[in-house]
Amino acid sequence: MSEAHDAVEVIIAKRDGNALSDSQIDWVVDAYTRGAVADEQMSALAMAILLNGMDRREISRWTAAMIGSGERMDFSGLTRRTADKHSTGGVGDKITLPLAPLVAACGVAVPQLSGRGLGHTGGTLDKLEAVPGWRADLSNEAMLAQLEDVGAVICAAGTGLAPADKKLYALRDVTGTVEAIPLIASSIMSKKIAEGTGALVLDVKVGSGAFMKDAAHARELAETMVALGTDAGVVTVALLTDMSTPLGRTAGNGLEVAESVDVLAGGGPADVVELTLALAREMLQAAGVDDVDPADRLADGSAMDVWRRMIAAQGGDPDAPMPTARETHVVTAPATGTLTRLDAMAVGLAAWRLGAGRARKEDPVQAAAGVEMLAKPGDAVTEGQDLLVLHTDEPERFERALAALEGGIAVGGSAGASYTPTPLVIDRVAP
Amino acid sequence: MSEAHDAVEVIIAKRDGNALSDSQIDWVVDAYTRGAVADEQMSALAMAILLNGMDRREISRWTAAMIGSGERMDFSGLTRRTADKHSTGGVGDKITLPLAPLVAACGVAVPQLSGRGLGHTGGTLDKLEAVPGWRADLSNEAMLAQLEDVGAVICAAGTGLAPADKKLYALRDVTGTVEAIPLIASSIMSKKIAEGTGALVLDVKVGSGAFMKDAAHARELAETMVALGTDAGVVTVALLTDMSTPLGRTAGNGLEVAESVDVLAGGGPADVVELTLALAREMLQAAGVDDVDPADRLADGSAMDVWRRMIAAQGGDPDAPMPTARETHVVTAPATGTLTRLDAMAVGLAAWRLGAGRARKEDPVQAAAGVEMLAKPGDAVTEGQDLLVLHTDEPERFERALAALEGGIAVGGSAGASYTPTPLVIDRVAP
Repeated sequence: MSEAHDAVEVIIAKRDGNALSDSQIDWVVDAYTRGAVADEQMSALAMAILLNGMDRREISRWTAAMIGSGERMDFSGLTRRTADKHSTGGVGDKITLPLAPLVAACGVAVPQLSGRGLGHTGGTLDKLEAVPGWRADLSNEAMLAQLEDVGAVICAAGTGLAPADKKLYALRDVTGTVEAIPLIASSIMSKKIAEGTGALVLDVKVGSGAFMKDAAHARELAETMVALGTDAGVVTVALLTDMSTPLGRTAGNGLEVAESVDVLAGGGPADVVELTLALAREMLQAAGVDDVDPADRLADGSAMDVWRRMIAAQGGDPDAPMPTARETHVVTAPATGTLTRLDAMAVGLAAWRLGAGRARKEDPVQAAAGVEMLAKPGDAVTEGQDLLVLHTDEPERFERALAALEGGIAVGGSAGASYTPTPLVIDRVAP
Repeated sequence: MSEAHDAVEVIIAKRDGNALSDSQIDWVVDAYTRGAVADEQMSALAMAILLNGMDRREISRWTAAMIGSGERMDFSGLTRRTADKHSTGGVGDKITLPLAPLVAACGVAVPQLSGRGLGHTGGTLDKLEAVPGWRADLSNEAMLAQLEDVGAVICAAGTGLAPADKKLYALRDVTGTVEAIPLIASSIMSKKIAEGTGALVLDVKVGSGAFMKDAAHARELAETMVALGTDAGVVTVALLTDMSTPLGRTAGNGLEVAESVDVLAGGGPADVVELTLALAREMLQAAGVDDVDPADRLADGSAMDVWRRMIAAQGGDPDAPMPTARETHVVTAPATGTLTRLDAMAVGLAAWRLGAGRARKEDPVQAAAGVEMLAKPGDAVTEGQDLLVLHTDEPERFERALAALEGGIAVGGSAGASYTPTPLVIDRVAP
């Protein structure tokens, strides 16, 4: 039972640049969850937090209060250690799909509670729902059983975890207060800590297609989350990775599942393989497992075996072909030279407008819609060659998708135009 | 019809330190009044305005948009010029009561649309309602007729003036966003400009009993309001006046009416007379009338004549005695020496707790409750002599009123202790 406070007192304290006390934080998060602090009070507080910041103690306490608003899960009964991964979201970011079965194949259980997409970045559940029969919703018991049996589960997060975060996130979305690092960090970490994972690897994206457009802000967010995880006893590491161009050669639900299966089969685009292995190594290290090389598990087919069992355990048919779109439209190279730019935000927006994403939570998504990339930055292209294939069930969507791509594609003037690729893994943040 | 905007876009612009465009301001004020911008969005915007400020153009436009949300009054049909006064609120601030009839007796019409008190400062309407029979609510037609006939009217502001302000003020009150100078200034000035006065004198209080505790903030508020009035074509001047100790020797509704009648009868406390005359001279000058000395109109009884007609025109009996409280309690001087401190906030809070003020809009007030001050700072006092008389109908209120006075009274150690009075009029701000 926390001490009684008053919403205006708490707002004014933060407005005037003071640190909130533990008691103020406990009270305001609890009172907001109960409805005793009104939305218009919490949004004023969120704006004051965004503009005046929070110190490490405040953010830790805020996160703990959000965790305390709901239930916690417990994986201590499992025979294996657990590790989870969270990405801040990017275009073509299907890494969870090959990563979870790969890490499970290395002996560490992966409880991947995921969400649906909103806006230009896709959601992991939307991608897997392109697999015929696959179900995202599992009971806690079914999830634990699958973790024990198969070693990997990707499913919807229950509503019982950090309900304060759910309410606050919806409020921030409509009040211009999403971009507050203390609130972003506590939102992500409250759910991950409540979930009960022993180790956590964060993939913090940087670039045009990411939430964080520059490395300085991404690093600040990464450091804040690593500190929060560490304070809560979760071994937490973050990688800062590039999101100036899409990951892999597909953006769209079914297209990304197919690409992920290629990776599990030992093929797939080099960048997707590289990031999957880098994150797998971090997860294994964070979980204290250092005697397995995940590249071997990819090569020997054991990661693919886990994938097939994981899909089947949730009702999916791992052998079913991915749905195909009714219509396609080809975008050709505008000149001959080196493809120097294929902008992540432009491609993400195009995929979204083709039907791969949703504008409102309740909108459906198309399983087959998206963008297929036949060339990536650094590739030599010839004027008129096929560059992108747009997929959708509704051809009236092509026009707005093409508009989204305008300015997003550039070809260097001469065939030998210099192109310096951005490293995929930009930095690593550890406690 | 203003251009369409989006609430989040407007919030983010101000959050990121940008000036809002005219079109953004017009849209957001109108949309908030219509309910298309939600309370939680407006409170986030108000916090961003409080922390990031607004420039003169933005504040002028915001004020114009608030005026545009409702009706405007028109005094151009009157045979006399008009001048109005607004005080930011203080303890014992009954100046409107002698001032309005005095200025009317000098030939300038005074349309004083007033409010009720909330918190430790009294409301002018609450004070006049201590007069048996007096009514605050007048139709616009009755108000105009009284202005023409009597020359002065003090009545409730209609709900038609700046409804956006009414809605926004209630929101700011519960979201820690009252103390934003752009919002305070536009709130006051939108109503005064919509009211249609030709000249306006602002009494901006400074000190413990005032909204603005220091002169720098008070001057900033005064300069902002003078600029707003000037931009809107209203001749506007401000005086910065002291509110470290209460005005006059009474704080409470009926007590202040009786003191005001003393002033109109040629007596009353020196500070109340001084400020009444200073504000009257400013109002006359702002209205372009420079051939009358208000001190003469006080001396010759013509101001009292207007007072009696003004009270009678609104149903009041100018000869009725003021109601008296059922109970009184005397506070004596704690030592012999010079009274060096009689704190405005302490006395205001005590009067409020005795029943003179209200905590919620819907609470009633006591006509006879309040604090009578038998000595003022600078006076010599003897230990044990009567210093204050507390009045209330409910004796159980004395304890909390006495608690409010703790620390608010100080007597200098020796009988000849030096005391330097603060000047009553601290500064004057003109365009």
